[in-house]
Amino acid sequence: MSQNRLIYVPLGGAGEIGMNAYVYGYGPVGQERLILVDLGVTFPDMETTPGVDLIMADMTWLVENRDRLDAIFITHAHEDHVGAVGRLWSELRAPVYARAFTANHARRKMEEAGQDPDEVLTVEPWPETVEAGPFKVAFVPISHSIPESAGLVIDTPAGRVVHSGDFKIDLEPGVGEAFDEAMWREATAGRVRAFMCDSTNVFSMHPGRSESDLGVEIEKLVAGAPHMVVATTFASNVARVKTLAEAGQAAGRSVCLLGRAMRRMIEAAVETGVLEDFPKTIPPEDARDVPRENLMLIVTGSQGERRAATAQLARGKYLGLEMHEGDMFLFSSKTIPGNERGVIRILNAFSEMGVDIVSDDDRYHVSGHANRPDLERMHRIVGAETVVPMHGEHRHLREHAKVAKEGGFQSVVAVNGAMVDLTKATPHVVEHVEADRVYLDGKVIIGALDGIVRDRIRMALNGHVIVNVILEDDAPLGEPWVEIMGLPEVGTSRAPLADVLEEDLNQFLMRAADKTLRDDDKLEDELRRITRKVTQDEIGKKAEVTVVVSRLEE
Amino acid sequence: MSQNRLIYVPLGGAGEIGMNAYVYGYGPVGQERLILVDLGVTFPDMETTPGVDLIMADMTWLVENRDRLDAIFITHAHEDHVGAVGRLWSELRAPVYARAFTANHARRKMEEAGQDPDEVLTVEPWPETVEAGPFKVAFVPISHSIPESAGLVIDTPAGRVVHSGDFKIDLEPGVGEAFDEAMWREATAGRVRAFMCDSTNVFSMHPGRSESDLGVEIEKLVAGAPHMVVATTFASNVARVKTLAEAGQAAGRSVCLLGRAMRRMIEAAVETGVLEDFPKTIPPEDARDVPRENLMLIVTGSQGERRAATAQLARGKYLGLEMHEGDMFLFSSKTIPGNERGVIRILNAFSEMGVDIVSDDDRYHVSGHANRPDLERMHRIVGAETVVPMHGEHRHLREHAKVAKEGGFQSVVAVNGAMVDLTKATPHVVEHVEADRVYLDGKVIIGALDGIVRDRIRMALNGHVIVNVILEDDAPLGEPWVEIMGLPEVGTSRAPLADVLEEDLNQFLMRAADKTLRDDDKLEDELRRITRKVTQDEIGKKAEVTVVVSRLEE
Repeated sequence: MSQNRLIYVPLGGAGEIGMNAYVYGYGPVGQERLILVDLGVTFPDMETTPGVDLIMADMTWLVENRDRLDAIFITHAHEDHVGAVGRLWSELRAPVYARAFTANHARRKMEEAGQDPDEVLTVEPWPETVEAGPFKVAFVPISHSIPESAGLVIDTPAGRVVHSGDFKIDLEPGVGEAFDEAMWREATAGRVRAFMCDSTNVFSMHPGRSESDLGVEIEKLVAGAPHMVVATTFASNVARVKTLAEAGQAAGRSVCLLGRAMRRMIEAAVETGVLEDFPKTIPPEDARDVPRENLMLIVTGSQGERRAATAQLARGKYLGLEMHEGDMFLFSSKTIPGNERGVIRILNAFSEMGVDIVSDDDRYHVSGHANRPDLERMHRIVGAETVVPMHGEHRHLREHAKVAKEGGFQSVVAVNGAMVDLTKATPHVVEHVEADRVYLDGKVIIGALDGIVRDRIRMALNGHVIVNVILEDDAPLGEPWVEIMGLPEVGTSRAPLADVLEEDLNQFLMRAADKTLRDDDKLEDELRRITRKVTQDEIGKKAEVTVVVSRLEE
Repeated sequence: MSQNRLIYVPLGGAGEIGMNAYVYGYGPVGQERLILVDLGVTFPDMETTPGVDLIMADMTWLVENRDRLDAIFITHAHEDHVGAVGRLWSELRAPVYARAFTANHARRKMEEAGQDPDEVLTVEPWPETVEAGPFKVAFVPISHSIPESAGLVIDTPAGRVVHSGDFKIDLEPGVGEAFDEAMWREATAGRVRAFMCDSTNVFSMHPGRSESDLGVEIEKLVAGAPHMVVATTFASNVARVKTLAEAGQAAGRSVCLLGRAMRRMIEAAVETGVLEDFPKTIPPEDARDVPRENLMLIVTGSQGERRAATAQLARGKYLGLEMHEGDMFLFSSKTIPGNERGVIRILNAFSEMGVDIVSDDDRYHVSGHANRPDLERMHRIVGAETVVPMHGEHRHLREHAKVAKEGGFQSVVAVNGAMVDLTKATPHVVEHVEADRVYLDGKVIIGALDGIVRDRIRMALNGHVIVNVILEDDAPLGEPWVEIMGLPEVGTSRAPLADVLEEDLNQFLMRAADKTLRDDDKLEDELRRITRKVTQDEIGKKAEVTVVVSRLEE
């Protein structure tokens, strides 16, 4: 059995912050039994993925090996860890294990995708373990910005590895379990081969603050507000929502939650018992009748999402509620890089309404991820031989590896698709498997490299010209017809672009050799070439061109 | 003449940071003589303006009144102040005044747009003045992140107004004039009706640092680097480019400037005499032969621009130069909100190469704009009755007005298109003129509301389906033909989307009433409706649809 090995293969999350999906394997080379940790999504942007609804890790390699897959473990209920469970489960078909609150979300994902929610099994935390093939997995509670997060202690015949999940070191997280160093020391005692560790905040140099530090500040702020107060945070940050609601209550305000995600998250937290003593809330229809100075709204949309409550309030009324001059809007959140434009649009819309914005993210927000000193502390608590950075862009992984080495640990940067053999004394990448991305586009899953999104981007940059030509017995019947979408109607010659195009295309057809007219490919190439040249001359950009040649026969 | 009034009308820059264009007027109501201060551009983004090359203020109102326009004044050579001079001059046709370095740039803009560069006149700084209609205008030197910036002191028969231009308070700006409080006190002595003031950094609470503070830090950093050093900053920040080059020289490195904008800016600065003692540089072809540890590149592209030198180096070779493991890349710059994604892409590409990135923007960068305490100081120096915030998004203008009022000044928030009557003791908005945006799209100027860009965005979000139908004597000839761009080829029914569409459209045509087949509009509407329904059912999104009906007649 000397050929058995222990491997780690990130398929998502090691090269971006998002779409987490990490595989562990144990067994003979190429026949390892496998488990998958997390199955999340990441979000599209207009620049690189216009029209796309969600981005997920490409599971091709795992699907090809799904007879070897024994289980899926979900560390916590954030979308980048659980969001793809429903969509991708039917291709993987392994039991899904999670703690109660997370399982509640995973089951909803399964239902939404038409899968059986009973495939999701609720597990108890460490010292309980789940056996899956050669793996014994324990969920060790860890503090994060959502209840019931867990790191995993994974035992195999080749030794132990520890998977941090997302975490921060918070001794008073408000809702959910406090970080328990003694428990972590005990759960990870003995030889640990490797520690797969969250890298998100490796560039933040100060120790993280506790969620509990915010309460006093937020309470003071809300108490001093003369008119309506509206606050936004991530819906999944149940502790923060509670902190905000308590501040409202303490100031004698009625509290109203706005946004489906927010209400659903609080319901799930109450149902699964992780949330107790949440202040009484009122529904939006009652909120309209409460004097504004006695009202506090807690709303979704801290990242500027166009359809969330914050953006709706910035555009005007939402469920009959609206903001007025002198109201206060609190961002109890941090803008994720890339979302600045949407958030700034909202700040300016509120400014036009005369709303006072508070967005000091040092005072009214703490991150859910461990900063550098806390990462170093966690490295020492787990005491693994090797630290393998995960949950980060390349720059985070690389920096985290540096930090680990400076702390006296081995480290290896493993990006999506890299297979690391953890059996050796010095782990290193032994192979690369396919690890791309797929897109949920409406109801359909497409590959990132299918060219579909590339075509959309090209149309958005260059406009689209449709050229129609009808041929009868290989001779033009009438003149070509041009339709234009997304291009100026008139170019430098001051004649309509469509007219110039039709004229030039017609000239070409009149003179074209029979050989060209008989050959669809050649004809299309020529018509496309002329169209691009004309749009370049007239507008200064080469349009995307679709040529439709219709051939009639006698 | 009691009806003469003094007015201020921002057409761009008061509601965004960019495309500055401010009008002042003096004379009888509706017949005021006018001057324009600055004529800049702003930059497009994929989210709201895909395919657009530049964004400029809509000059419709000013063009309609151009017989009243006496002059254009350009405060400094940043693109958001001078960038539209060439493109829009032919519509305005008034003399352009600027100081030498700025005039150098304005002339190039004129030449590039095929206009006469001699329309740009070089002016000397205060106490010299330019007379333009009823206006006397003096250019008062002020420190900023580009040489020869000026604020304007504008005298009219109705009194004096002061226009700050972009500025910071820097006593040692490196290149260009230091802030001279005594000069500013003298130039603005006496009654000042209104002070139009830069609002960019109103949310930065600490006093600004001097450019000279950076030199020591950068020198230390470069001296300690073991391999090649590459640094980026704004090309127009001539002082910073010099600081960087001097740090390279002090470390015994050959210095090479990469990127057309960078070389052109330094040339202009040398030509106009604002830059002296710039370290000797070598051309890229020589840089290839210099040992890496003796080389320093100073490059364009600090904002992640795809075609600039930084992005090119992140993708691989640029002019035969490339980055290696252990090289250092310094961002001596700050990422402008909205540009994060592009910059982060570059950070990760460098990380994959093993390049060490330094981007501490507190240590290696200072802003060109006055922070709040410096704004307050400047309010007091100018001592105007009213402070009118400009050069900012709405949130900056509103906050700046608050700050001014707290300092004991009157203030009024005037956004693009708002006409402020400055003659009254308490200035307020008396009218709104049209003040939208226009886009340079390739070589053509289009309106923001023309629908062209909206169509591009729709194609990018929803894909584009082209439906072709040929009718002969109002009866379908053959079957409809569908082309698809930017949509998945196969939908939920697992049949090709084009086939499903053609089938359903054909079914419709076979059964369509003669009345429908004879009516182009009706026929197109029906074909579009069916196409959108099918794409919704199959893909989950309603495609953009172009219908082409060709009618043949016997």
